[in-house]
Amino acid sequence: MVQVTLKDGSKRSFESGKTILDIAKEISEGLARVAVAGEINGVVKDLMTPVTEDCSLNILTFDSEGGKHTYWHTSSHIMAQAVKRLYPNVKLAIGPAIDNGFYYDFDSEKTFTPEDLQAIEEEMAKIIKEDYPVERFTLPRDKALELMKDEPYKVELINDLPEDAEISFYRQGEFVDLCAGPHLPSTGKVKVFKLMQLAGAYWRGNEKNKMLQRIYGTAYPKKSDLDTYLQRLEEARKRDHRKLGRELDLFDIYEEGPGFPFFMPKGMVLRNLLEDYWRKEHVKRGYQEIKTPIMLTKDLWCRSGHWDNYKDNMYTVNIDEAEFAIKPMNCPGGILVYQRKLHSYRDLPQRMGELGLVHRHELSGTLHGLMRVRCFTQDDAHIFMTPDQIKDEVIGVIRLIDDFYKTFGFKYHVELSTRPEKSIGSDELWEKSTAALREALEDQGIAYKVNEGDGAFYGPKIDFHLEDSIGRTWQCGTIQLDMNLPERFDLYYIGPDGEKHRPVMIHRVVFGSIERFIAILTEHFAGAFPVWLSPVQAKILTIVEKHIPYAEQVKAKLEEKGIRVELDGRNEKIGFKIREAQMEKIPYMLVVGDKEAENGHVAVRSRKEGDLGSMPLDVFLERILGEIESKAM
Amino acid sequence: MVQVTLKDGSKRSFESGKTILDIAKEISEGLARVAVAGEINGVVKDLMTPVTEDCSLNILTFDSEGGKHTYWHTSSHIMAQAVKRLYPNVKLAIGPAIDNGFYYDFDSEKTFTPEDLQAIEEEMAKIIKEDYPVERFTLPRDKALELMKDEPYKVELINDLPEDAEISFYRQGEFVDLCAGPHLPSTGKVKVFKLMQLAGAYWRGNEKNKMLQRIYGTAYPKKSDLDTYLQRLEEARKRDHRKLGRELDLFDIYEEGPGFPFFMPKGMVLRNLLEDYWRKEHVKRGYQEIKTPIMLTKDLWCRSGHWDNYKDNMYTVNIDEAEFAIKPMNCPGGILVYQRKLHSYRDLPQRMGELGLVHRHELSGTLHGLMRVRCFTQDDAHIFMTPDQIKDEVIGVIRLIDDFYKTFGFKYHVELSTRPEKSIGSDELWEKSTAALREALEDQGIAYKVNEGDGAFYGPKIDFHLEDSIGRTWQCGTIQLDMNLPERFDLYYIGPDGEKHRPVMIHRVVFGSIERFIAILTEHFAGAFPVWLSPVQAKILTIVEKHIPYAEQVKAKLEEKGIRVELDGRNEKIGFKIREAQMEKIPYMLVVGDKEAENGHVAVRSRKEGDLGSMPLDVFLERILGEIESKAM
Repeated sequence: MVQVTLKDGSKRSFESGKTILDIAKEISEGLARVAVAGEINGVVKDLMTPVTEDCSLNILTFDSEGGKHTYWHTSSHIMAQAVKRLYPNVKLAIGPAIDNGFYYDFDSEKTFTPEDLQAIEEEMAKIIKEDYPVERFTLPRDKALELMKDEPYKVELINDLPEDAEISFYRQGEFVDLCAGPHLPSTGKVKVFKLMQLAGAYWRGNEKNKMLQRIYGTAYPKKSDLDTYLQRLEEARKRDHRKLGRELDLFDIYEEGPGFPFFMPKGMVLRNLLEDYWRKEHVKRGYQEIKTPIMLTKDLWCRSGHWDNYKDNMYTVNIDEAEFAIKPMNCPGGILVYQRKLHSYRDLPQRMGELGLVHRHELSGTLHGLMRVRCFTQDDAHIFMTPDQIKDEVIGVIRLIDDFYKTFGFKYHVELSTRPEKSIGSDELWEKSTAALREALEDQGIAYKVNEGDGAFYGPKIDFHLEDSIGRTWQCGTIQLDMNLPERFDLYYIGPDGEKHRPVMIHRVVFGSIERFIAILTEHFAGAFPVWLSPVQAKILTIVEKHIPYAEQVKAKLEEKGIRVELDGRNEKIGFKIREAQMEKIPYMLVVGDKEAENGHVAVRSRKEGDLGSMPLDVFLERILGEIESKAM
Repeated sequence: MVQVTLKDGSKRSFESGKTILDIAKEISEGLARVAVAGEINGVVKDLMTPVTEDCSLNILTFDSEGGKHTYWHTSSHIMAQAVKRLYPNVKLAIGPAIDNGFYYDFDSEKTFTPEDLQAIEEEMAKIIKEDYPVERFTLPRDKALELMKDEPYKVELINDLPEDAEISFYRQGEFVDLCAGPHLPSTGKVKVFKLMQLAGAYWRGNEKNKMLQRIYGTAYPKKSDLDTYLQRLEEARKRDHRKLGRELDLFDIYEEGPGFPFFMPKGMVLRNLLEDYWRKEHVKRGYQEIKTPIMLTKDLWCRSGHWDNYKDNMYTVNIDEAEFAIKPMNCPGGILVYQRKLHSYRDLPQRMGELGLVHRHELSGTLHGLMRVRCFTQDDAHIFMTPDQIKDEVIGVIRLIDDFYKTFGFKYHVELSTRPEKSIGSDELWEKSTAALREALEDQGIAYKVNEGDGAFYGPKIDFHLEDSIGRTWQCGTIQLDMNLPERFDLYYIGPDGEKHRPVMIHRVVFGSIERFIAILTEHFAGAFPVWLSPVQAKILTIVEKHIPYAEQVKAKLEEKGIRVELDGRNEKIGFKIREAQMEKIPYMLVVGDKEAENGHVAVRSRKEGDLGSMPLDVFLERILGEIESKAM
């Protein structure tokens, strides 16, 4: 018998050798029906895995991350099986589960077409109907190579495995794939699926390798879930910040600067507003702002450890035969600023913020609008403090992040990552600092998920994942404790005892990257930014030309109050002008005709509420200024 | 006989072959006494040059630029002669006149000491007393090399001269130097001189060459002029922005980033204020702001011409085997932004500003605080317009620059540079655009100096030279017309005729470089910035500890009004606290004791006006807010 601790904490005994699926059945037939995998001591396993030792066990359904991963991984094998049936000469590369689905990379002479995808889908449906059991087995290296001898990519993968690695395969019907798993117990478990798109992808993501054909797909247990997903995709497509960025003249990326965004006039207004807001809120909270250079000597990056650990993502420049790196992070510069003077414990905490432009290399295939770029502005800050100040400082940052996200209408969840196996720093300091993070979160009444062992080698961290208006999550804010850099740079402060002491350092961001945050905001609001953030807050539309003088008076009055306003005095039909302003997603249209000019009124159309009728200009002014002041959404 | 047109426009005839000095004597003995050189058809010549053709002639005194140059050049020869007398083994490199004096570079085994400078000065006094005539002669190359055979640096210079170059020498007593001149007629013409300092300098400014010893000196016709100069130097030394930058915690430069400045918290406040001011004033004037990336592909820089003409000053980066340049200028990026959409003549002018961070290589020996750096932020703008709009747009920029400089209390003078020999663009467009610049200046009633032929090959320009509080001038603003880039990038707008037309482009800056402007401001104000620009505007000083609660109320009230305020509540004598706040050059100290706390008063000490006595907090608030609002100096 083995003793199994279930997710709810209850303990039950089962006969040793029963599979996870057997145990699920013993718990309830209903659970067994929806089970897709099991987590034994935190590791996701096939449902057919026998349980032979005392353990903790969590039966996973599709709703869990591990469950989805398993479901989609088997779906990817089904797709590969269908492809091999239809096109036997195709060579298989890799086929993982990813966010929202799966893909498989194929090396095929034939270029797949949308019609081929339909054929593949039909073949997949057959394989699912045939309901093959999915069986795991392992082989010694020579046998494994023999089995895969016609699949050169698999041979390469096997050869790259470490000497002592277990080489596992999964078989379903006539199809066998080199794979670590886990998988569903049979192909029939996959219910509804759809192949989404075709793309090119280099073998191992390296441009020097052959370009393969990637087929993306997704799968769900219920048709309604797939439909919801497809609707969300469509909604996301409409909100695509790359498209809106161009349409609303906010930002763009050109081939002259792959991964290097350009901000257009209206995007720059938005950006300056975010930066001003950031500055004001940080001054309020006792931050000081600094600016450190874009490039610094190699020596400094060696000292910080970036040269050894991060060089592949750094751009370098030669000046007078010395090597410089363009900064991928702001911390070493911030540390030089800390070191410019002697600090007493009375001066701590020192909160130093920097809107720092960093450059990090990304493969060209992974670049995506402002979401994934090669240069971005971190809204960075480094807090230098005594170990006793960790909790209070972390609370301060949590509150700041909470304020910011609420301002934009984002919900969020929080994850705490703790000490990994390989780490530096004393047990005492790790315990103290991890406890301080926990206490800070609990003090603020914030629920959080723990990622055990997922912290950086130099300290634990808190991540903030915000949820946008169509339910997608984005990791933006982080609070990262650092016990490494203070050591490497021999930072100190003078304690009450007159001796030198080592400060602890926090790295933290709120927006994360200003560029990416602007992309997220653009998609979150579908380009219809709240009034305070709108590049143009009101547009005055004249009915006919003679209303232009009055329209200009209105414009001057609004500008005097700091409102960003445009005037459309063109000789066009009012309906046409209104439609154009709607396309530009301007919050307020102010139509002016005879009646308005006579009475000092404006006829207001709100983007959100439609026609508000004619009102005195002052009434409108009060309304819009109130919305701006309160950052209303 | 030759006909000579004098500076005042009058024409006089002289016997052919008379020297410039002879002519000066004929005009007046007084003029001949103070004459140091003559300008024939715009070229500065020795006074002993015979006039053999009709020409325009300007007799130069020490007060002119060419006169000073001649005076200091001869002084440099006198110094070299003295050095050769005292240390015959020393080898001579070069010895030019520079701003405010001259130097000579020597290759000497012996390291010169301040005592040596005194000995050299004594020997120079002898040479001046001996009053040798300074005589010019030329030699063919072989004879020139023979004459200079013991001076290896001179041999190298001769060998580098073009085949057909005239090789000229100047002799004074036993001393002969390879030199293009011009020079004073005799050593006795130099009246008062002083050797200033010793420095190391690489031969030809190249670090790979030998380090030579440079001796700097200066000379004046009158002792009072030298004294004035030395006083100004001392005043400048006290105001040195590098020293003040560190003392006031504004900015600094570290060896980890030679030429790459760091902005400290207080410097960052100043910088943000300047940038905010810049933004507000530009929005008012119809500018749009953009931001373009720090690096762009080599292709773009080839197209713009920078790759061929500016590459040595550019830093480059390799990404995925393609070459990118870090931008030395913002224009190509700005042009891509212009090209993002089709422009009608109705949309012009387009005024697009960018606070653009540019990097330009400078030799390490020439770096100087924030004045000469390798990266700086240009307050750039590009105006795209029809040729007819040039004058109005230039007027707009002139007014903007005038407003800015007046705000900081700078006087300035203006120079117009016209078409050079080598240039592109039609005669018609050159005439039209140069006329537009002249008309714009005249329209604004601004006196200007014309630098004939000194414009860029692609267009005429206006430079603004501002004068600081100790009389030094700094070139900051420029308005540069450009007919080249619109051509190279095939820019166009659609005219009223429905056809494509080429726009003209203005490049312009107001601050020039924000970093350098901050350095100039720091020296101009000697760190005592006007209230609106002061990083800390008021500091509250408690008499004893019990006044802290009231001091904090005062602080909160000031902060509520947006005033940047600090509180010194330390347990120190009030006199000590006042001295410290004075050192920090804070505009207002607010002392609070029993009486103040009782009455809701503050005892105000103004940095400018001293003790203003006790006053209600509201009265003080009104005063300081008024000064901030009006940007009072």
